[in-house]
Amino acid sequence: MTANSSVVLARRPDGNPRPEDFRLEQSPLPASGPGQVLMRNHYISLDAGFRNWMDEASGDEVLPAMPLDQPVMGLVMGEVVESRHDDYAAGDWLMARIAWQEYSLADDSHFIVKIDRSAPYPMNLYLGVLGDTGLSAYFGMVDIGRPRPGETALVSAAGGAVGSIAGQVARILGARAVGIAGGSAKCERIVTELGYDAAIDHRGDVGAQLLEQCPDGVDVYFDNVSGPLLEQVLEHINIGARIVLCGAVATYGQALPGPSNLFQLIAREATMQGFFAHTRVERYPEARAQLAAWLDEGKLHAPEYMLQGIENVGPAFCDLFAGRNFGKTIVKLV
Amino acid sequence: MTANSSVVLARRPDGNPRPEDFRLEQSPLPASGPGQVLMRNHYISLDAGFRNWMDEASGDEVLPAMPLDQPVMGLVMGEVVESRHDDYAAGDWLMARIAWQEYSLADDSHFIVKIDRSAPYPMNLYLGVLGDTGLSAYFGMVDIGRPRPGETALVSAAGGAVGSIAGQVARILGARAVGIAGGSAKCERIVTELGYDAAIDHRGDVGAQLLEQCPDGVDVYFDNVSGPLLEQVLEHINIGARIVLCGAVATYGQALPGPSNLFQLIAREATMQGFFAHTRVERYPEARAQLAAWLDEGKLHAPEYMLQGIENVGPAFCDLFAGRNFGKTIVKLV
Repeated sequence: MTANSSVVLARRPDGNPRPEDFRLEQSPLPASGPGQVLMRNHYISLDAGFRNWMDEASGDEVLPAMPLDQPVMGLVMGEVVESRHDDYAAGDWLMARIAWQEYSLADDSHFIVKIDRSAPYPMNLYLGVLGDTGLSAYFGMVDIGRPRPGETALVSAAGGAVGSIAGQVARILGARAVGIAGGSAKCERIVTELGYDAAIDHRGDVGAQLLEQCPDGVDVYFDNVSGPLLEQVLEHINIGARIVLCGAVATYGQALPGPSNLFQLIAREATMQGFFAHTRVERYPEARAQLAAWLDEGKLHAPEYMLQGIENVGPAFCDLFAGRNFGKTIVKLV
Repeated sequence: MTANSSVVLARRPDGNPRPEDFRLEQSPLPASGPGQVLMRNHYISLDAGFRNWMDEASGDEVLPAMPLDQPVMGLVMGEVVESRHDDYAAGDWLMARIAWQEYSLADDSHFIVKIDRSAPYPMNLYLGVLGDTGLSAYFGMVDIGRPRPGETALVSAAGGAVGSIAGQVARILGARAVGIAGGSAKCERIVTELGYDAAIDHRGDVGAQLLEQCPDGVDVYFDNVSGPLLEQVLEHINIGARIVLCGAVATYGQALPGPSNLFQLIAREATMQGFFAHTRVERYPEARAQLAAWLDEGKLHAPEYMLQGIENVGPAFCDLFAGRNFGKTIVKLV
C-alpha cells in the first residue's frame, strides 16, 4: 500500500509563518468515494493569501479556518489516478483548492479546474502566469488599474508572482511601470528581467525614491503589500488615481494600523478597490488566451522560484514572506 | 465710510477648532478693481472640510494654506453692490469661495457661481441642499454609492449637512437607509424628520448596533467621518460594497491611524472612492434640478442650523465639530 505524505498545520503562525509551523505526516492512501477523484499531485502553488486562514476563527466564504494538525489547504495541481466523478477521468490534469499532500481527494466543493492539455504550455504555468496569480495581475491591471499611455503604474512586491506579471501588463498597456522590491539585487532583476522602467527598494528611503522614480506622480498603484508602504504611496497619487488592492502580505497575521492619510483618496478623487480573480472565472479563457499570446510574442516573461519535494512546501511558503522568491513560487512533487 | 468686519484666523486650531481660534477685525470697506466685484455677504456657509487649510503648509490645488491673522476662507453668498466684472452686475446674487467677511472682493479666482434668482427657492438653500453639500450628497450617492432597491445604505454624520441629504437620496433610490449620529436626540431626529429607517448612536456600542440595524450587512457606506468608525463599518460590508469617502471630519487636524482592516476591501471585493462635488460642475444644473424637484414633491427635507451675526461665524464652525448642528450650518449676516 502506497503511503501519502501531507503537510499539516503544527501550530498557528505568529506573524510571518516559520518552517516549524508545519509538519510532515504519513497516512494511508485514501480511496475515492462517489463524486470524488483521487489526484496524484505534481505541483503545489504557494500563495501568501492562504496565510489568512491559518489564524483561529479566520473562516469566511472563501475558506474555513484551517484546523490544527490537519493538512494545510492551498492551490494544487495533479493528475487524476482514480475517478468517481462524472466530469473527470483518470489521466486528466486538474487544479483544485485542496490540501498540501502527495495524493488528495477532491470533489465539487474544491473549486476544481480542468487543464486543457492540448495547449502547448508546461503544466506548471497554469499555477502561475496562466493561473490565479497571472489572472490576478491581468484582471487587477486591465479591469481596475486601467493604466493609459503616459501614465505611471506602480507595483509593490514587483518581484512576486503577481507583481512580476502586473508590471509587464501595465507596460503592454502603454504605461510606465515602476516596481517596488526588497534589496538591490531584486530591484535590478525586475528592471533587467521583467522590463520595469524603474525600481524602488523598500529597504531604502521610499519617499525620496518615489519622488525620483515617479516624478509625475502615481496614476495606478497595484498593491500586493498594504501596510506602511500604502501610506507612503498615498502621498504621491495623482487626481483620479486607481489603487488596486490585490494582496496585503504585510498585514497577514498582524493587525497593523492602516494608512492615516485616507483623506488623500478624497483630495485626489481616487479609488481603492479590492478584488479576487476567482470571481471572474467566466472570463478566465479570454484572459488566459491573452496572457498566452503575450508569452508567445515574447512580450511577457514568467519567472518561477521552484523547489522540489513535499518537505520543502512549508519552507517555500515561508520564503514568500521573507521575499526570497522571484516570480511564482511552486514546489514540484513528482 | 462703512466699516467691514472680518473673521481672521487668530491661531491655528489644535485638533478640533475652538472659538478662540478666530477673531473679529474691523477694516475699511474695500473698493473693487478691474475684474472684481464687491459683494455684500448675506450668508456664510460653514463646512468642516475647510478645517484642512487652517493647518500650516496645508495648501493644495483646492486652496492655499490660510495665513494667520488673515480672513478665514469659506463658502459665502452675497449680493453684488459694485461690479467691475463683465459677467456680473449690481443686484446679482453670487456664491464664491471667499473670506468670512461682511463685504468681500471676488474675481474669477474665487470660484464664483451666479444664482438664478428666478427660481422659487430661498437663497440660503443654494448653500445647503441646492449647493455644495446637497450636491455632494447627490453625486456621492447617485454616482458612487449607487444603492439599489433592497440594499442597505449606511451614512455617517447622518444629521450633518451632507448626511441629512445623503440618506434621503438613498431612500429615494429604493434602499434602506441607516444613519449614524451622536446622541439619542439626534438619532431620533434623523428617523422622524429625515426618514432614515434606523439610527445608530456612535456614542454607544457601534458594533452591536451595526449587527442589529444592518442585519443584511452594508452595501453602501457614505462616509463623512473616517477614523475608527470606518474601521468598524468595514467589518460589516457586503460583497461588492461601495464606500463613498465624502469627508473625514474625525481626522481633520489630527493624524489618526487608519483602518487596520483594509483587507476587508479585498475579502469583499469592495470599492472605496473619494470625490469632490466641485469637479462635476458641468452637472450642477441637472443635479440641482433633481434635488429641487424632490423638494417640491415633499420627498426631501432640508433642515438648517442657522445662527445670526458675523460674531457667530467662528462659534458656528466649531459647532460642526462638536456635532451641535442638525442639517446645514449657516450664519445669516444681513
